[in-house]
Amino acid sequence: MGTIFTKIMAGEIPAKIVYQDDQSLAFRDIDPKAPTHILVIPRQEIPNLGAATAADETLLGHLLIVAHKVAEQEGIAAGGYRLVINNGANAGQAVPHIHIHVLGGRRLGWPPG
Amino acid sequence: MGTIFTKIMAGEIPAKIVYQDDQSLAFRDIDPKAPTHILVIPRQEIPNLGAATAADETLLGHLLIVAHKVAEQEGIAAGGYRLVINNGANAGQAVPHIHIHVLGGRRLGWPPG
Repeated sequence: MGTIFTKIMAGEIPAKIVYQDDQSLAFRDIDPKAPTHILVIPRQEIPNLGAATAADETLLGHLLIVAHKVAEQEGIAAGGYRLVINNGANAGQAVPHIHIHVLGGRRLGWPPG
Repeated sequence: MGTIFTKIMAGEIPAKIVYQDDQSLAFRDIDPKAPTHILVIPRQEIPNLGAATAADETLLGHLLIVAHKVAEQEGIAAGGYRLVINNGANAGQAVPHIHIHVLGGRRLGWPPG
């Protein structure tokens, strides 16, 4: 198996990587919906939150901490940013590998989709 | 200090609580933007992700696991749901206590606000 994110992690598909560590990777969304739009993913291939267990809590929380770190790095932390996780069809989840959208650099509307 | 969520946790303001454990609480948003719209919060008063540290990773990940549990309980996990965390002014964060919006029961549009 494996998704487009597997190929990005393997360097087989280019991506504008903005952050990485041993557990996670962050890169720019190829179809940005805000001045800053980045995806944060775990290196571990977890398709969605339904496939995660209590054993993954520290990893999942790490992704949120990384999302904030990336927001700071991009200069959008002070102004504010939105994190979005799409889980399944009704949310339009496009890749079956957990990813957190980090959106900022503009005022974000409500409702969120 | 303390926010409206502090009062909800203390039972001083009524809320439609759908889940709780020793670390978290989940209740219905009073201004729902989807057929199911729930907020998941940590009992620990963390104003935003910028105030969280690596020591909070397990707690933060727990909130995501709880969000999925609540989605299952509400019958929106299979169809799909969206999680949203607003962090700061540009995202419209309304209460300075970390909360995850769980939205489902309809098709959610893109961009997410």
